[in-house]
Amino acid sequence: MSKDKVIALLTDFGLDDSYVGTMKAVIANINPGAYVIDLCHGIRPQDVIGGAFLLGSSYKFFPEGAIFIAVVDPGVGGERKIVCVQTRKYIFLAPDNGILESILAREETLTIVEVSNAEYFLPDVSSTFHGRDVFAPVAAHLSLGVKPARLGESLKGLRRLDLPRPETSADGVVTGEVIYEDRFGNLITNIDRNVIGGTESRILSVAIGNRKIDKLSTSYQDGRPGEPVALFGSSGHLEVAVNGGSASKLLNCSRGDGVTVAFEKSH
Amino acid sequence: MSKDKVIALLTDFGLDDSYVGTMKAVIANINPGAYVIDLCHGIRPQDVIGGAFLLGSSYKFFPEGAIFIAVVDPGVGGERKIVCVQTRKYIFLAPDNGILESILAREETLTIVEVSNAEYFLPDVSSTFHGRDVFAPVAAHLSLGVKPARLGESLKGLRRLDLPRPETSADGVVTGEVIYEDRFGNLITNIDRNVIGGTESRILSVAIGNRKIDKLSTSYQDGRPGEPVALFGSSGHLEVAVNGGSASKLLNCSRGDGVTVAFEKSH
Amino acid sequence: MSKDKVIALLTDFGLDDSYVGTMKAVIANINPGAYVIDLCHGIRPQDVIGGAFLLGSSYKFFPEGAIFIAVVDPGVGGERKIVCVQTRKYIFLAPDNGILESILAREETLTIVEVSNAEYFLPDVSSTFHGRDVFAPVAAHLSLGVKPARLGESLKGLRRLDLPRPETSADGVVTGEVIYEDRFGNLITNIDRNVIGGTESRILSVAIGNRKIDKLSTSYQDGRPGEPVALFGSSGHLEVAVNGGSASKLLNCSRGDGVTVAFEKSH
Repeated sequence: MSKDKVIALLTDFGLDDSYVGTMKAVIANINPGAYVIDLCHGIRPQDVIGGAFLLGSSYKFFPEGAIFIAVVDPGVGGERKIVCVQTRKYIFLAPDNGILESILAREETLTIVEVSNAEYFLPDVSSTFHGRDVFAPVAAHLSLGVKPARLGESLKGLRRLDLPRPETSADGVVTGEVIYEDRFGNLITNIDRNVIGGTESRILSVAIGNRKIDKLSTSYQDGRPGEPVALFGSSGHLEVAVNGGSASKLLNCSRGDGVTVAFEKSH
Repeated sequence: MSKDKVIALLTDFGLDDSYVGTMKAVIANINPGAYVIDLCHGIRPQDVIGGAFLLGSSYKFFPEGAIFIAVVDPGVGGERKIVCVQTRKYIFLAPDNGILESILAREETLTIVEVSNAEYFLPDVSSTFHGRDVFAPVAAHLSLGVKPARLGESLKGLRRLDLPRPETSADGVVTGEVIYEDRFGNLITNIDRNVIGGTESRILSVAIGNRKIDKLSTSYQDGRPGEPVALFGSSGHLEVAVNGGSASKLLNCSRGDGVTVAFEKSH
Repeated sequence: MSKDKVIALLTDFGLDDSYVGTMKAVIANINPGAYVIDLCHGIRPQDVIGGAFLLGSSYKFFPEGAIFIAVVDPGVGGERKIVCVQTRKYIFLAPDNGILESILAREETLTIVEVSNAEYFLPDVSSTFHGRDVFAPVAAHLSLGVKPARLGESLKGLRRLDLPRPETSADGVVTGEVIYEDRFGNLITNIDRNVIGGTESRILSVAIGNRKIDKLSTSYQDGRPGEPVALFGSSGHLEVAVNGGSASKLLNCSRGDGVTVAFEKSH
């Protein structure tokens, strides 16, 4: 079997309702051979930043040619555009609200177009569920070989998202914040390996909530049960976790809370 | 690749346990080529009305030939029948408890049979998990071309479900109720476009909880952040939502709560 | 269409984050023809016993040749091994922490190897997400025909899990405990049909919480609404349920709580 194309779905629709299932129905109706992978539907409702983070830390594991639908879309039915971004290996469909920020930061964009050609939409487009009426059918047509340029006019750029960015003080202390909290209560920060550029081994301490963690670990196992550990996790971001527990609960921290990293002096 | 057949699953099994995964295993065992789409597994336990609503608002987006398994089945192991309903485009398998009510209301039925031919069941049928032991194998066999008539005796009709229906008073006020609440806290009512038959533009107000909403919107964006809006949503039903928030929380309303729609006088 | 191979996933990753979606991406990248079935991702975080129970009660419904990934892995990044177990019909990949206990109890193992050959891993293996970096790529390679023996050195056995086992007193009373609680609030015990060996018909009473249930039922329907029933459920284990309700809530019981079964004297 050679599967035609992967279509990856990232939404804040959850799985309790039939929104995601209906999108898959629409795709199957247009391209029965598309292989739909649920990247994630558990983004907090309307949390564009969380969506941008998960997309940015996951997309590169997909096969070349994958088409991503990223719908966290508080502006559905309003004036925000829908955009299609082509990079060397992938195609992304999303509302123009910054959710592709983490892709723009990592990939060269070859084409950006506004998705406006209703020829590729469902016949009746609702004003509340573009996932079903626009995103799903457009992705299915792309998976059949339709070129992004057919979807609408070329755009010069996208709306940017003001992602919280870490700051480095004069004495080298890096201050960031928690941008994602996962099911295990791991607190993932916006401080990634690039931010600290190879200085990982000189980290003296990581402060979060009322706690100061005095060393950098390499795995959750490094901590004694119930104790917080700080480490660079699978997304390449600094995270705080608790061996056998929830850092979020132990430290009473969540999205937006500050994190401070101090370093040994370099010589 | 030409996928043989879509089998769509709608259940109240949730995704926390292995019930749904085991149904897929059984299907793959009988027809490895079937393409299973999860329509929804988040129906509230034993909420036949919620299941009927979601099925009725989603089924038509599926490809012709799709086979639906709809298992919200408080009567499993009791005397309720299992039925197979064939319409012009689809086949539905369900307990005979009214969950197909919304299909009967919309589609002409060609065949209704009782599913009783154990030849198409798993060898050992439990009394508590017919999803695995009856529905999944029967759907898989249907997807391989078995005709519904092979499943059992023909039936004259189905048990009807007493769906809450909106009422119109002498002075034209329509009173309905919330029949579904989605992950975003949107309150979806049993008042659909057919009920008000083209009088949408004359809606004066929608009353729910302690609030009166003074106009009909066309998208969530029409409301100021935090304010409730009333609109006909993607299911064709009147719903109440909050721009950037949860109507359910703001209005403290949920399933079964009343909604009243008043109209301008027509001349 | 002949699907190559089923890869079944059982994890405690949940579906709120992108962990499972990323594993599927990795698999699709290596073997686009693999058919991934989500057996369950709702195992309570790090609940090896719950994972062992669900795997043991579900695996045999999968097609011959299926490859199982079972990742409930509190020891990720520590010294625990990753193992590959081949039985007559299936292949299992798991951390060596006892999660395969229920498989060992039911199946003859043909081969056990340590998974150590990095040739089949992703190039960069994180210390926190072996699901993505080790389990997914190894399963994908196995689905393409790689033999388990290629993965690493042969092992004599696995670490055993101290599963709670029921006890039978001198006067024949069987005492067990709740090992799993499902979405419906059904309380599933570690007392299975093998434990009581054909004495089902002589069960006098089942005691749990403050209640004594005076007969064994065959379906949930046997109970009056709101009343607890005891029955052997679809997993072959004794469970306590409430017709139209939640046994867990009604009896205020959960994982680890005791259950006692008394029998008529045999003659």
